[in-house]
This record gives sequence, structure tokens and C-alpha cells, in this order.
Amino acid sequence: MRIALALGDAGGVGPELAAKLLAHEEIRALDVTVVGDARVLAMGAAHAGVTLDLPVIRPDQVGAGLPAGHVLVDLANCPVEGRPLGRSGDDAGAACLQNFAAVLHLAHAGLADAAMFTPFNKHSMRLARPSYVDEIGFIDAAIGAARSGREFNVLEEVWNARVTSHIPLRAVADALSTDRILSSLRLTAEVMAGAGKPGARIGVAALNPHAGDGGNFGHEDDEILAPAVAAARAEGIDATGPIPSDTVFVRAVRGEFDAVLTMYHDQGQIAMKLMGFDRGVTLIAGYGFPIVTPAHGTAFDIAGQGRADLGATLMAARLGRDLAALNPDRAPRPLPADWARAVVAETLLVAE
Amino acid sequence: MRIALALGDAGGVGPELAAKLLAHEEIRALDVTVVGDARVLAMGAAHAGVTLDLPVIRPDQVGAGLPAGHVLVDLANCPVEGRPLGRSGDDAGAACLQNFAAVLHLAHAGLADAAMFTPFNKHSMRLARPSYVDEIGFIDAAIGAARSGREFNVLEEVWNARVTSHIPLRAVADALSTDRILSSLRLTAEVMAGAGKPGARIGVAALNPHAGDGGNFGHEDDEILAPAVAAARAEGIDATGPIPSDTVFVRAVRGEFDAVLTMYHDQGQIAMKLMGFDRGVTLIAGYGFPIVTPAHGTAFDIAGQGRADLGATLMAARLGRDLAALNPDRAPRPLPADWARAVVAETLLVAE
Repeated sequence: MRIALALGDAGGVGPELAAKLLAHEEIRALDVTVVGDARVLAMGAAHAGVTLDLPVIRPDQVGAGLPAGHVLVDLANCPVEGRPLGRSGDDAGAACLQNFAAVLHLAHAGLADAAMFTPFNKHSMRLARPSYVDEIGFIDAAIGAARSGREFNVLEEVWNARVTSHIPLRAVADALSTDRILSSLRLTAEVMAGAGKPGARIGVAALNPHAGDGGNFGHEDDEILAPAVAAARAEGIDATGPIPSDTVFVRAVRGEFDAVLTMYHDQGQIAMKLMGFDRGVTLIAGYGFPIVTPAHGTAFDIAGQGRADLGATLMAARLGRDLAALNPDRAPRPLPADWARAVVAETLLVAE
Repeated sequence: MRIALALGDAGGVGPELAAKLLAHEEIRALDVTVVGDARVLAMGAAHAGVTLDLPVIRPDQVGAGLPAGHVLVDLANCPVEGRPLGRSGDDAGAACLQNFAAVLHLAHAGLADAAMFTPFNKHSMRLARPSYVDEIGFIDAAIGAARSGREFNVLEEVWNARVTSHIPLRAVADALSTDRILSSLRLTAEVMAGAGKPGARIGVAALNPHAGDGGNFGHEDDEILAPAVAAARAEGIDATGPIPSDTVFVRAVRGEFDAVLTMYHDQGQIAMKLMGFDRGVTLIAGYGFPIVTPAHGTAFDIAGQGRADLGATLMAARLGRDLAALNPDRAPRPLPADWARAVVAETLLVAE
């Protein structure tokens, strides 16, 4: 089992969190392929006050048969001398895009079983690549995925999966279908079983206020959501709903549900952030390997001070490890012939 | 200053909360016109373990010049002998509709300065009147309002007002306009100033995820919400936003805002219920007099046990009292000639 770890934004807490993670006793026992600039990781180690001693290789040396333990693939893509902390920048953004693309390729090729990254900064990434929208779109393009994955927000108390995500609110209702909701329920049950929560109890958030109030405030809950819940139950998935979205999280927090499936981005995020989701993990599943990252951001205000809490990053690594263990027999495939070149010229990796 | 208090659903905790409230030292000092069935209030007093001693009058005796202190207008509309607790029923629902209509009329006529009710049960009300949708629609019809009021959810930590409420999610975006949001901001600032919070700092929740992310996920935040915030600021209202709705409540809880204006029902309710809104108060403002009620429901599971917590009900009464004090000079008008008859034949009161 190997984790491919992309170093996060050089201006934020990503480098120091990566260094702290690699120095953590529990993670030292794992095989980890770190991808990024050696100078960024060294800076992170200095900020974190930890000593790292891991072999450094070039991108063209990557393949099957890497030594056990930790190894750093030095992309030499982000000089840090004189670089200010606490600010976005196209240099850091470009490096993150390269690091991210690289770990996705490694995992997609079976050379890692989980992909992980410490915090990226979307503003930096857009300075480097204005067309960057979100992780899902980038992953789809980077590995040529036939089907988009889904994002899960993971707190110890409750998981949150959503049917739609980065679309305008006005587009949500028409983007829902019984099939799409059912497929989200299946994926949620499957991923949670993989994460050690078989038979997860899933509360399904209603689309409309009061779950449509018997048709007074919309028909989708009765006509689209309810049939999806019924179909899921017929398959043995422990789904309940649709439940008014202002009570489903209250019930989950009280222990009634292990996960909540929400219909749109803010429906879940409002609740999860109030519940302290910054302590949590973002998981992207559905690509054959898990992609994990701490839910919090680059925390520019405390970057470089060694104060960033490792909690969410450690929880992300554990989740990546546990989910990866589900697919122990992935056969490595060779990387594309131009892998090393493509990684450092990241525009080649991702179709516009 | 006089509060008109409608007794809540006879099957729930409303009667005992009304009795506890009337027995509370702070409320004993106020003028309160209680409206409901004398047998229901007596039952509530027995459940609450309190002794009430207030004059009882008939509806046709109501007018200007009621004696100071508490008085009960006995509508004799809900026999309780043999009536089960903990269940909805058309008898209790019909009585609530009558009680509600009566206190609205009293306040509208200037015979009370605030209207209040202990918990109603929507299911009971619909058994009695299938066309009942929500409070706002009922109030509009009952007093023939030219303009609908707005609902505020009030917690000590933060107030929540919303621009749209009981409509399908798919209708929200088109229901928003710069004018409508600006008018909500004005009303919020005005009502909060009246409640002792002048200069309230109002965070405005964005409609789309990430506030539209610069147009990637919708344009309303830039084109409709932002101009409303700018116009409000130009009028001296301390409005900020649009702020992504998954962070605006986190910032409010941290003390950055006194109120959050949300664009749709669940956007606010998800957050408020997680924050413990059952401890809070629902305020309906914009009718010339405040209408207040505890935010929690009839709590059928503990009805009749005297265990229901008075906290939210007391907070509602205080808020009604404080807001009513803003309009000390309302001149009473005569009630309609057929008031007494209309109150007990509640269908006459409310246009279908």
C-alpha cells in the first residue's frame, strides 16, 4: 500500500504539514511517494521543526519497484529562496498543479493506491491556470476519466456526500434525477463500507423546504428523491428520507445517521462547517483510488510558524490508507512514455 | 403595552407553556390578553403546576379599556375532557386558527401591541383547514395586509432573516431582486434597532456556492446581491457580502455579525437549527406590530408532563414586549362589528 502525496502551496501551511506528517510515527511505517520541490519540503521541515531523511529521485526514475518507505520525487518546480509566505502566487500555483497531476498519474497507473495533497490555494492555481475550476474537473482531465468522482466531507461524527456541487443554485433542481441520487447512495454506501463503516445509515436531505410540504413547496422530493431512496432500500442500502434539510444534520449529530446525502453544495457545507469541518477531511472517490486532503485551506495567516495543527492531515492520510487497503491487488501499469516531461510541463498533462 | 397571547395546540405543550408564562414574575407585571378556551388554559395550569387567577370575559366584551393585568377571552372552542394529549386533531387545529386570528385582529386594531402564540401544530391546523400553508399567508389574509411581513429567527448569538421562504428551491433564484434584498436589509436593520440592537452588523449570505466563484457558479451574487449590499451601505446599513453561505454563519458565531440575511429557507434554517434554534424565537415583523412565538414545536412526546422548558417562550414574550414598546402611541380602533361572531366562526375571518 503506497500513498502518493503532493506538496501543497508553498505560501501556506501545506509544506510544514507534509513534513509533520512524514515525521509522524504512524506514517513513517507506510510507503509514501512524495511529489514536489525538494526545497519546499525542506522549508516545511524547518518550519515544522522536524528532521526528514528520505531518498530523493528524479521524475524519470519513477516506476514500479520503488524502495519501501518514503521517497521524494523532486520536480524542482518551486524555488523558495526569497519567496514570501502567506501570499498566493502563480509560481506556487503552477507547482501545485504539477504536483497534483503527478500524484493522480501515479495512482491512476497503479504506482500508488491513494493520492493525497496538503492544502492547495485556488487563487494561486488560477494565477497559473485561469481555467482551473475545481478538483473534480482537474482530475477528470488529468487521468481522462470516463466518469466524474464524487466529493465526500468526512467528520468523525458524520460524513457528507452531495449529488451536485459546483453549479449555480438555479441549476440544482434540473440536475437531479432518481438515477443520479441512487448512484450517489450506492457510492456512499460502498465508500463508507470501505472506510470501515458497513451498513452506513444515510439520511437523505430534501431539496425543498419542509421536504416540499406535501407538494406545497415543490414536487421534486416526492417525485425524484423519494423513489431514489426506495430503490436504494430495495438494494439493501440503509437510506432514509427525504428529510427536511434543516433537521437531517441535527438528527445525524444525535447519532441517527452516519452520513447525510445532500442535493447541493451549500446544503451540506453550511452544516459541516458549523460542525467544525475544518477538523475534517475531503475525500474524492469514484476513480478507482481515493483522493484525500485536509478540509482546511492554506491558512496563510499562520504559514511558516509551525503552528498548523496536523489533525486533519493525519486523519486524511489514515482515511486514504484504509480505503486503499480495499484494493490490494491493483496491477501497476507503466507510466506514459513522456511522463517525466509532461509532469514538469503540466499543461501537457491536462487537456484544456 | 399589551400582549395578545393565543393559546397553542391543546394536544401539545402550548397550554402548559402559556400557564407557566402567565405565572412568571416578569410577565405578571404586564398587560396580557389571553385568547383561547378557558378549559385548555386550566389544563395547562394543572400540567404546569401553577395557579392562575385571571378574570375571564366573553369575546363580545373585548374592546378598549380592558383592565390592567391579565385577562382571558374565553372562546370556549376546545373541550378537553377525554381529549388525548400528544396527538394532532382537527378540534385543536380549529381552535388554534381561531385563537391566532383573534390575537391578530386585536393587535391590528391597536387593542394589543404585540401578538404571541404558544406552539401550534401545522398538522392539526390542516386537519381543520386543508388550505392552511403558513403563518405569513394566514396573517396576510386575516388582517387584509397590503404587504407580507417577514420572518426572523432569533437566537441570542445571531438573528436570521430571509428574503424568500416557503417556495420551491427551483424558484428561489428568480424570486430574488436587488430591490427585494434591499428591502429585507432595511427591515432587518429597523427591526433589530427596535429590539435594542442599533447599527446591527448584517452578513448577507450568497446565493451560489463560493458566492458564484467569480461567475463560474452563477451570476446572481455579482449582479443582484452585491448591488443590494452596496445600496444598503449607502443608506448607512452595516451590511457585508455576499459571503459564501457556508462561512457566513461561522463568522457570525465568532462575533463578526449580529444577523445573517439568507436568500432561501433552508440556507438559514440548516445553520440555525444546528446552533440550537429550538431555544430561540420566531418573530414575524412588518405588520405594524410584532408577532412572536417560541421556535420549537408542540413537543407531543412530553405534552402534559409539565417538563417543557419555558426559556424560548419567555424570550419570545420579552422580544414582543421590547418591540411593542417602539410604537407606544398606537390609537386603538374599534373591532369589526361582527368580531365576536367571526372569531368563533373562524372561516369568516380569513378569506380563502
